Amino acid sequence: MSSRIPVAVLAATGSVGQRFIQLLDCHPYFKVVALTASDRTVGQKYGEACHWILPGDMPDWAREMVILPTAPESAALPLVFSALPADIAVDVEPAFALAGSMVCSNASAYRMAPDVSILLPEVNADQAGIIPIQQKKRGWSGGIITNSNCTSTGVTVALKALQDAFGLSKVFAVSLQALSGAGYPGVPSIDIIDNVIPFIKGEEEKVESEPRKMLGKIVGESIVPADFIISAHTNRVAVIDAHMVCLSVELKNSSSPAEVVAAFRSYQAPEVSRDLPSSPNPVIVVREEADRPQPRLDRMTGKGMATVVGRVRPDPIFGIKFVVLSHNTIRGAAGGSIYNAELIVKLGYVKK
Amino acid sequence: MSSRIPVAVLAATGSVGQRFIQLLDCHPYFKVVALTASDRTVGQKYGEACHWILPGDMPDWAREMVILPTAPESAALPLVFSALPADIAVDVEPAFALAGSMVCSNASAYRMAPDVSILLPEVNADQAGIIPIQQKKRGWSGGIITNSNCTSTGVTVALKALQDAFGLSKVFAVSLQALSGAGYPGVPSIDIIDNVIPFIKGEEEKVESEPRKMLGKIVGESIVPADFIISAHTNRVAVIDAHMVCLSVELKNSSSPAEVVAAFRSYQAPEVSRDLPSSPNPVIVVREEADRPQPRLDRMTGKGMATVVGRVRPDPIFGIKFVVLSHNTIRGAAGGSIYNAELIVKLGYVKK
Amino acid sequence: MSSRIPVAVLAATGSVGQRFIQLLDCHPYFKVVALTASDRTVGQKYGEACHWILPGDMPDWAREMVILPTAPESAALPLVFSALPADIAVDVEPAFALAGSMVCSNASAYRMAPDVSILLPEVNADQAGIIPIQQKKRGWSGGIITNSNCTSTGVTVALKALQDAFGLSKVFAVSLQALSGAGYPGVPSIDIIDNVIPFIKGEEEKVESEPRKMLGKIVGESIVPADFIISAHTNRVAVIDAHMVCLSVELKNSSSPAEVVAAFRSYQAPEVSRDLPSSPNPVIVVREEADRPQPRLDRMTGKGMATVVGRVRPDPIFGIKFVVLSHNTIRGAAGGSIYNAELIVKLGYVKK
Amino acid sequence: MSSRIPVAVLAATGSVGQRFIQLLDCHPYFKVVALTASDRTVGQKYGEACHWILPGDMPDWAREMVILPTAPESAALPLVFSALPADIAVDVEPAFALAGSMVCSNASAYRMAPDVSILLPEVNADQAGIIPIQQKKRGWSGGIITNSNCTSTGVTVALKALQDAFGLSKVFAVSLQALSGAGYPGVPSIDIIDNVIPFIKGEEEKVESEPRKMLGKIVGESIVPADFIISAHTNRVAVIDAHMVCLSVELKNSSSPAEVVAAFRSYQAPEVSRDLPSSPNPVIVVREEADRPQPRLDRMTGKGMATVVGRVRPDPIFGIKFVVLSHNTIRGAAGGSIYNAELIVKLGYVKK
Repeated sequence: MSSRIPVAVLAATGSVGQRFIQLLDCHPYFKVVALTASDRTVGQKYGEACHWILPGDMPDWAREMVILPTAPESAALPLVFSALPADIAVDVEPAFALAGSMVCSNASAYRMAPDVSILLPEVNADQAGIIPIQQKKRGWSGGIITNSNCTSTGVTVALKALQDAFGLSKVFAVSLQALSGAGYPGVPSIDIIDNVIPFIKGEEEKVESEPRKMLGKIVGESIVPADFIISAHTNRVAVIDAHMVCLSVELKNSSSPAEVVAAFRSYQAPEVSRDLPSSPNPVIVVREEADRPQPRLDRMTGKGMATVVGRVRPDPIFGIKFVVLSHNTIRGAAGGSIYNAELIVKLGYVKK
Repeated sequence: MSSRIPVAVLAATGSVGQRFIQLLDCHPYFKVVALTASDRTVGQKYGEACHWILPGDMPDWAREMVILPTAPESAALPLVFSALPADIAVDVEPAFALAGSMVCSNASAYRMAPDVSILLPEVNADQAGIIPIQQKKRGWSGGIITNSNCTSTGVTVALKALQDAFGLSKVFAVSLQALSGAGYPGVPSIDIIDNVIPFIKGEEEKVESEPRKMLGKIVGESIVPADFIISAHTNRVAVIDAHMVCLSVELKNSSSPAEVVAAFRSYQAPEVSRDLPSSPNPVIVVREEADRPQPRLDRMTGKGMATVVGRVRPDPIFGIKFVVLSHNTIRGAAGGSIYNAELIVKLGYVKK
Repeated sequence: MSSRIPVAVLAATGSVGQRFIQLLDCHPYFKVVALTASDRTVGQKYGEACHWILPGDMPDWAREMVILPTAPESAALPLVFSALPADIAVDVEPAFALAGSMVCSNASAYRMAPDVSILLPEVNADQAGIIPIQQKKRGWSGGIITNSNCTSTGVTVALKALQDAFGLSKVFAVSLQALSGAGYPGVPSIDIIDNVIPFIKGEEEKVESEPRKMLGKIVGESIVPADFIISAHTNRVAVIDAHMVCLSVELKNSSSPAEVVAAFRSYQAPEVSRDLPSSPNPVIVVREEADRPQPRLDRMTGKGMATVVGRVRPDPIFGIKFVVLSHNTIRGAAGGSIYNAELIVKLGYVKK
Repeated sequence: MSSRIPVAVLAATGSVGQRFIQLLDCHPYFKVVALTASDRTVGQKYGEACHWILPGDMPDWAREMVILPTAPESAALPLVFSALPADIAVDVEPAFALAGSMVCSNASAYRMAPDVSILLPEVNADQAGIIPIQQKKRGWSGGIITNSNCTSTGVTVALKALQDAFGLSKVFAVSLQALSGAGYPGVPSIDIIDNVIPFIKGEEEKVESEPRKMLGKIVGESIVPADFIISAHTNRVAVIDAHMVCLSVELKNSSSPAEVVAAFRSYQAPEVSRDLPSSPNPVIVVREEADRPQPRLDRMTGKGMATVVGRVRPDPIFGIKFVVLSHNTIRGAAGGSIYNAELIVKLGYVKK
């Protein structure tokens, strides 16, 4: 354990930051040595500054750490995890990359930049290959890799299996999203008890674009999105964790539900991503019950890192419809960034 | 009031039956003179046999009524409202029709029969014209008219406005449905707190077929469905009342969101249906806020009889997407049957 | 209607302010002519400045009103309703009283002042007699009257019936309180789904003191609290509206459940309070079902102004236990202030 | 592992039965070799007969087991766990005891029998001493021990620490109980969304009597209850798991909150119960935050076996008030029975 890589968590007191702390507790590769948060809390102990909202207590090692400013001067370690909001990430993350840090970011600020990959190790490990291009173009010794929007994550894993097996043409996606995706305090309780909200700011745009980029490829110095189309409706529901998405998909080679199930079941992560500490195995779990997946029952499948699929059946317009579930703050946020970090360590992009 | 038409409510103790009692309280056309329920409760007072689950008390006149057997011998009045489950309705409703009753049914048993209309007065009042055909074919002096599945109701009202204005080609529909749609006791609480259920038995089949029949027309002795296609995903969420549906629609004449909003706003019920006691006015209410309609805030629009539409915006695949909300146990069940009864009274199909 | 008294609502955009607007719509005595809110929104139209959170639309007359500063210069009408937070009310309400307004306040700032009454017209209309004393002592031509904390309201109505019939000695009270009591945005959804919170800041102190003051009397120039003791635990639960309180009570003259029910049933408001527009009639509704009152089913009893009691049964320590339910934002907040205003108009304390 | 004691689970398909299966998976002492359920399912595989409602999958070993009749002929192993409903347990459990099984029962049928202990190993391990008395009196070679009602469990653990330190005189207890305590399907969702229910059949009687018996002692051939008094109100709230109880307590030697906290913190289980596989350590966890314990955040403390206490503060009537939380289906049901079984194995009451 003495050889663990020292890492920082930027914006450690928020809801995603807390998940980073929880999931990095006893991580075999990484040791948290720096926590940053807003100026207001700099100098306080994490245990005092942070209103911990996860079940279970914060780890003792975190409780005593003193919060540092969110700046390369304080925390430019070889690897940093960013839970920054997008409007702050836009300036801070490049500063860290310039100072030599590999930034594994949960923010949306750079996701759609053509020289930044949205990385899902079980889907597009090859897009890590953009890192040297990015470093050269931007003059950085470090770099930025992002994980996708939490709703896009499970959707993209499932679509990847179909893209490989049958090709993709059109996708309809309607989400039922958990409250934790809105951060803390997030959605007022009075807005969601006995209710659903058919709107999440900026979300439909992300779901219509990010999966296409993740399923694209590096051409020259840019990542070129795959050429299928997505239409998304996004909704907030009274669920604590896990996003569920109803999908109707038109495949290039139309296929039966049984063939689609077989494609999900046989899908494997790229070789390089299979044995990382956070790798889900299997990548996709197919449930056969008529009424699954369900958020409360299935979100912890594969320690919250697996993509759960169910209700694979014919669609009268597009050919196939099914339901995807993914844990939004584990696979879709902090856990995803950590999985990305494990991959780029293995690929040698992190200085030791 | 002395000239009100005496009516019966079949299966009066269940959740839809209770809505009938509540909505028929002080109705200007109808006076409830008979209540039926399962054999187990026959002979009991309604106030004792019924576990009332609606806010507010049951009306005093209902409390003292004695429950009768569900058979024409007990209750073959000129007009009967049926809240029977489909498997019992299949035998009982024709028996009433043969005995001369007009049965306004909430059951699915006869909805798809070619000589039975699924009637929405603000949409397809002309399909009431099937009644004399049905009577002739089946040798009945009464008849059966049905209201649609609760999810199909609001969807069909909104689609009617688009069909009239632009023509319909393809519809993708994903529902977030209220718990009251499952009756009582219905969904166990432990299955829906911090959860959603992506399955409702038989529901997707209904949503994919009923709107097409309602938007079709009488040809010869049958109702011929309209020729567009619907793909449906149906989900249960932790909401007491009101079904919300996300819709993406391909129109025959593709149109802008502003044109679609104008079509919703200017939609009017057929002349004959406009001034009935239960007529919503306007038929469709368009909300302009980014995050509406919402079940808890908008379900009582137009006393629960209006169809509420919002988030009209472009769809990258089908051209237009929007959200529809409708109260499932008022417009989509008991209130819908009563509205149907008002229409057929006006049309002269009910003996006085 | 032309003779309606012109009134102002202070802090009209918040959750209690919105209830004032809703309940004052078409009020027979009062006509809202001024709305105030925070400096940030002054000059905007109410329809733009206010994020309306109640079911149903805001009244059209309110939509177009321009928001004024919260100061006597803008809005010192003979009667003003205050939905101000306590820390602002402490300075602003006396300024209005000095300028001649009768302030019907929902804030806690002056509730415990010995020359300010916490008024429940159906309980302690006589305490309105403190107004001239207050005016003389403070040199005001107007005055301040308050309504109680929302949890104390229903509790006090029920205890009043027992105090009159049997005398009170000790009261143990445990609340299960609705989310709307915390204002908007209030409790984050992630804190209350699949959860309860056993703490509401400052609430237990209020429940242990306010009922005693309301059940006390004017002695000389002060209101002297009644001499029984209350112990309170207060909890937040996932309910939109209505506070439920479990009560165990030691009476001076110990009595049977049947006698206690009879006391609740026969309780009448003081003569002067019986026929006001907001008077509940009966004041207390006793439910006989084993499992009532319940918030969702019983909160609108008496248009949300009645106190609902149930489960009256023996208590092995204190003699009697029962459950009380009261609508926290109607009877316990805006509706209570309006009811108070109706009383003081009748008593002649409001200049016309 | 080959020396694990073979055990049966009676009524294995219900909600408590499922918790037994889950918690006995890989248990170091016990190996499940027989599952029983209702006649309707006898002969089916458990995986087919059981509608699994817990997060996570049922263990593979259980899936293939064939369901046996609930009778000694099928399943009279030295140790059986009973999740039977009380009305069936009343006949079946003695039949197993007569046939030589030690029955660790979750049913209420024999809890209040003077020669049957309600056992909480961390509280009253000495009451296991009733077993030989029971065997002699009833002519059994086996026996019955019970665990308490789920609400009484955490209450009794907390009260035991106070009884030992200060003596107990009077206790007021108001519960906010989870839905899982009602079994499956249990509470209809429509009854609890946006609602609480102030009634649980038979529960208040249990909470007023069981803790007194558990804190009593064996005198001659009977367990004599402790002599303090409890008054209970019990409520159902929209929480999946964990019962929260608000307690006000009059101690024989009145004590400060700090002394009470110290008593909770220093409380230890009897020596014999400290190192069992299910022993919580510490027995009582005291939270210092103003708003804890909370069901969702604290229920898994000590793997769901610890009692969590918080908000220890003065009570104006009884001296001390605080809040207790305990996991109702782990510590308060299946986990409690397993803990009991571990204790009686250690004490030598189970034949090997």
